[in-house]
Amino acid sequence: MTKTYNQMGLIGCGLMGGSLALALKRAKLVKSVVGYSKSPSTTARAKALGVIDQEAKSAMQACAGSDLIVIAVPVSATSETFKSIRQFVQSNVLTMDVGSTKQDVVQNAEKYLGWNGQYFVPAHPITGKEVSGVEHSEAALYQDANVVLTPTPATDLDKVQEAQALWTAVGGRVHVMPPCEHDALLAGISHAPHLVAFSFMNSLLSQESYASFMKLAGPGFRDFSRIAGGDPVLWRDVLLANRTEVMGQLRQLVLSMQAFQKALHAQDGDALEALIVKASKARNAWRP
Amino acid sequence: MTKTYNQMGLIGCGLMGGSLALALKRAKLVKSVVGYSKSPSTTARAKALGVIDQEAKSAMQACAGSDLIVIAVPVSATSETFKSIRQFVQSNVLTMDVGSTKQDVVQNAEKYLGWNGQYFVPAHPITGKEVSGVEHSEAALYQDANVVLTPTPATDLDKVQEAQALWTAVGGRVHVMPPCEHDALLAGISHAPHLVAFSFMNSLLSQESYASFMKLAGPGFRDFSRIAGGDPVLWRDVLLANRTEVMGQLRQLVLSMQAFQKALHAQDGDALEALIVKASKARNAWRP
Repeated sequence: MTKTYNQMGLIGCGLMGGSLALALKRAKLVKSVVGYSKSPSTTARAKALGVIDQEAKSAMQACAGSDLIVIAVPVSATSETFKSIRQFVQSNVLTMDVGSTKQDVVQNAEKYLGWNGQYFVPAHPITGKEVSGVEHSEAALYQDANVVLTPTPATDLDKVQEAQALWTAVGGRVHVMPPCEHDALLAGISHAPHLVAFSFMNSLLSQESYASFMKLAGPGFRDFSRIAGGDPVLWRDVLLANRTEVMGQLRQLVLSMQAFQKALHAQDGDALEALIVKASKARNAWRP
Repeated sequence: MTKTYNQMGLIGCGLMGGSLALALKRAKLVKSVVGYSKSPSTTARAKALGVIDQEAKSAMQACAGSDLIVIAVPVSATSETFKSIRQFVQSNVLTMDVGSTKQDVVQNAEKYLGWNGQYFVPAHPITGKEVSGVEHSEAALYQDANVVLTPTPATDLDKVQEAQALWTAVGGRVHVMPPCEHDALLAGISHAPHLVAFSFMNSLLSQESYASFMKLAGPGFRDFSRIAGGDPVLWRDVLLANRTEVMGQLRQLVLSMQAFQKALHAQDGDALEALIVKASKARNAWRP
């Protein structure tokens, strides 16, 4: 039986937080949502769109009286948020974030939440859109999404189970692993690819033929470069926070590219085909 | 007024050729299609699916009596095809290919078609799917696709106009440019990205966490790696044929990646954000 909540305090009314509010209300797991965003106009828009039921003037006000607190701010604003709401992180409240990196969040939780950090469950739903903002929120965003919970040895196990039930109820496939494992895996499947997609756009931009490139670009370009449209502040924070793992993944990628360059240079069709067969088989075997 | 054809000779009954046959028949521009594939079972399947109307036992047989010839074989089989059908490439016939590289095709046309090479119009419709084979053919494949024609100074201008009308009639947006320009542009927007996507899969495969990577992979991974599922023989040929341009694009990409690595190493958030802003703005400004 999934627990229901009287009041969700939402800090950061963006795409991720707004979609979770909608999903939890649709699933009838939350009665009312009190939302706060740094920009008052965002909070007002969230209210006007029905994503939140009540506007809060501060993060603290969003937390007061809430039995569910969700921090959905850019990763770089997490520590500031922890500082301002620490008194509300308690045993009778489930507190979670939705950030794309986890080791830094866990470190900040330990630093700023102290003993009550045990009631905080670090969470990362692996989904999103290339458009941000509360106006793109949708209740179905977490349907079939992988959601990673990264408790530490200190985290309260009941709270982890509560979080697991909540994410499952909105359609997520929950995985539980240590923060460092999460960050290493995400560097490979998400963070490094974003860096490469950004670099790819900048590489085309740096060339005289840029306009011609864009005119001929087809479906391959569209999909390969889609993630390059991501939010700059969010991705700056993610890449900085997880830079060691991201750099490691880039090294691996460059090694794999060098195998291709070597085969091309030698005009070795067999070697080239073998490299592509390996990649193509693996990609076609993947099921989301 | 777009010209109509009595008989299309299709050499290579795969996704590209099969889709063009369906599109031309739907547009009532072709009365009947005679098809040939190296593998008799493919030709039979194309017939059974209604993609072609008659099976040919050889490329020559497919060309006999055809006023439209379409060569839709892997790039590496183009010269062999030119050799076997050269007597059918004539002024009263429109002959085209659909290959992804054009300088090599033009060279082979000059070499094997001789004087009548002037009636051959090199063409590249920039579209496709990550699945190949005649069974995935669809009449709408070329709708809104960019189609590049790469005549040489020797190509018959009437034939270029005929080709332009034909591709426009099946929904393509036709661009005319020299073969070398085509290959340089495609290296940037398609060939190098394919090489990177293949390398990305191989990089993940080379790591112990491969199974975990695949389990957590989300929509970003799905789109970024989609083109890695491409056909190995087709892409071996493309990368080999266009290797000089592809290597040049890889150099540009690596330079752009190094700008990110430098910013990450220095933990320079401002520089990192500026790099991402540039990429993200450009990607979001692109309209297919």
